[in-house]
Amino acid sequence: MQADKQLLRIPGPTPIPPSVQRAMSQPMIGHRGQEMKELINTVKEKLKPIFGTQEDVLIYTASGTAALETAVINAVQPGDEVLIIVTGAFGDRFTKICDEYHMKVHKYEVTWGEGAEPEQLAVLLQKLPNVKAVFATFCETSTAVLNPIKELAKVVHRESDALFIVDGVSCIGGTETKMDEWGLDIVVTGSQKAMMLPAGLAFIAASNRAWKVIEANPHARFYLDMRKYRDKLQKDSTPFTPAVSLLQGLKQALALMDAEGLHSIYERHETMKVMTRAAFKALSIPLLTADVHASPTVTAVKPDDFAAEELRKVVKTNFGLTLAGGQQHLKGQIFRIGHMGYCSPADILQVIGIIEIGLQQIGKTIDLGLGVKAAQTAYLEMKL
Amino acid sequence: MQADKQLLRIPGPTPIPPSVQRAMSQPMIGHRGQEMKELINTVKEKLKPIFGTQEDVLIYTASGTAALETAVINAVQPGDEVLIIVTGAFGDRFTKICDEYHMKVHKYEVTWGEGAEPEQLAVLLQKLPNVKAVFATFCETSTAVLNPIKELAKVVHRESDALFIVDGVSCIGGTETKMDEWGLDIVVTGSQKAMMLPAGLAFIAASNRAWKVIEANPHARFYLDMRKYRDKLQKDSTPFTPAVSLLQGLKQALALMDAEGLHSIYERHETMKVMTRAAFKALSIPLLTADVHASPTVTAVKPDDFAAEELRKVVKTNFGLTLAGGQQHLKGQIFRIGHMGYCSPADILQVIGIIEIGLQQIGKTIDLGLGVKAAQTAYLEMKL
Repeated sequence: MQADKQLLRIPGPTPIPPSVQRAMSQPMIGHRGQEMKELINTVKEKLKPIFGTQEDVLIYTASGTAALETAVINAVQPGDEVLIIVTGAFGDRFTKICDEYHMKVHKYEVTWGEGAEPEQLAVLLQKLPNVKAVFATFCETSTAVLNPIKELAKVVHRESDALFIVDGVSCIGGTETKMDEWGLDIVVTGSQKAMMLPAGLAFIAASNRAWKVIEANPHARFYLDMRKYRDKLQKDSTPFTPAVSLLQGLKQALALMDAEGLHSIYERHETMKVMTRAAFKALSIPLLTADVHASPTVTAVKPDDFAAEELRKVVKTNFGLTLAGGQQHLKGQIFRIGHMGYCSPADILQVIGIIEIGLQQIGKTIDLGLGVKAAQTAYLEMKL
Repeated sequence: MQADKQLLRIPGPTPIPPSVQRAMSQPMIGHRGQEMKELINTVKEKLKPIFGTQEDVLIYTASGTAALETAVINAVQPGDEVLIIVTGAFGDRFTKICDEYHMKVHKYEVTWGEGAEPEQLAVLLQKLPNVKAVFATFCETSTAVLNPIKELAKVVHRESDALFIVDGVSCIGGTETKMDEWGLDIVVTGSQKAMMLPAGLAFIAASNRAWKVIEANPHARFYLDMRKYRDKLQKDSTPFTPAVSLLQGLKQALALMDAEGLHSIYERHETMKVMTRAAFKALSIPLLTADVHASPTVTAVKPDDFAAEELRKVVKTNFGLTLAGGQQHLKGQIFRIGHMGYCSPADILQVIGIIEIGLQQIGKTIDLGLGVKAAQTAYLEMKL
């Protein structure tokens, strides 16, 4: 049974709701017919509130990394100075992409597990008057940090004329995003996280001032050229054959999000975060990230008296529960619990219950039920 | 019922077999776990005979166009001379990509509807001693031409040291491809054609001599960097989050292809081609392409006494049969019937039967059943 009973609690890919799976199992349709035009017309409007924007949200057939590269090669040119806020592995990825394209890269490196500090960013920007773009990661998946994007945006615009480019891959759809109001110039996300879809689609939106830069940018690009996607989206189409079945799923996933309401979705994610953190606090197992920087979509746990990898292995074997490990220098040091998309407070109770058994099984003595009780209490308090 | 009864007979996207749909509806799994490793290990071996190669077949999460761009930016550098064999819209796409990246583009332009002539290619290559790569389209989807890739490859290697790069998007899996034996240096295809999957995956393989060029090529690239995909594939992994559900479908599609056998698959496509062409010949409706260059995966029809668009409209409305129109200057001049992937000789009988009714309905008087009879006869002759 275990192959069917997947408890996938990593920070993406995330589980797929049954109605989205059914939508993706519809008969294949032509990518240039009327059905597809209507589908694109529906989904493009519903993506806007999730980004908090009036701008077009472009739809790419690609992974999230392609969307990061899209932001880089459309908004910046080789030789341009850029400042990258690196809070973990995905900030690091922006650096690698910018290095590959010969940008002049400056970094604001933050200790992994901590969030970026707006006033430290201000100090850096004052020393770097020629920066054309500042890159940040909204939720740093590798450390479970939610960076203060709204405040960072304020500083970027106060201290510079740079574009502010945000990787929202592992949180958009699960946490409030106000692209227009906050002044985010480019925002990207992927399908396989809070959007409740398999991997394979990426979404990207740009502000009016970013579009001016993108339109004038001579940097060579073809498949990732945002201008091509915008031109076609305005005609309810795509420049290249899109992943049709994923778009059929997207329509249904957006219908589910509509029915729940964005405010309720954000509250649900906040509740799952508080429950998860309460459980580990009750069990006296350290969390990697302080409350103030904790992400509503993923939690990182940094045990000091048992091996993270041993726990991951035992819960996978006995319960089919997949937890994520650490990346790069955090490998073996932490484990991460994804709680986004098609995931509920009830799922958190289950995860904590399993982890408690797993801890016993690897020889760490705990009070069984203590973490679950704390999560239950947190849930009830959130509902007051 | 019509939304469920899609008769999708365009040259991709193509219909999805039920067992492939079920495979894609399995619970989501982690992209870095043991299940995924095993899945990648299985599919990577089964892709090789379809390409006719011992080399690694890389798996991208992207459309076919991204795979064409991948070939360009990995194998060639800005300023390099390239020769592009343009037999239709997809040869044209190679030109656009090479132009975008500032290659020095030479073109061998062939009248749309005809196939490239190896000896004409030889003459051109003799005049262009510095060409680094020759690009060709195996099946030119826009004209339903199957170019003589084996013979073109011979000429390329006889007359030059150039790499021979082949777009096999709309035929690989449906027609014999012997990458190693024929000396093809880079071959790409997509998932949504003869491979019986939705769009969203692209496959690409390179010869040993192509890999030497790719490894040494300093041209900037990140998401499309073939080196990253090869390194990870050798560890049964991917450099970026792959489209997991499509990979689950790929495993099943490859199992279906295995069970049928490649030889039988190619024979089935050949049969569908001969049946389709026999029907239009019997009805005295002109085909765009001569027999010698006709593709086994798609047929283009160029009516001289009725409007292609009118026929497409009436069969769509009354039967849910989707045929493709013409592209670029062939728009409105032709219609195209896709017969690849999850498509059988019985489906051809149905398509011809519907088209005959459609012709009557738009006012063209024909002998009902004449085309069907010719297709039936062709079928029986093929089975002798």
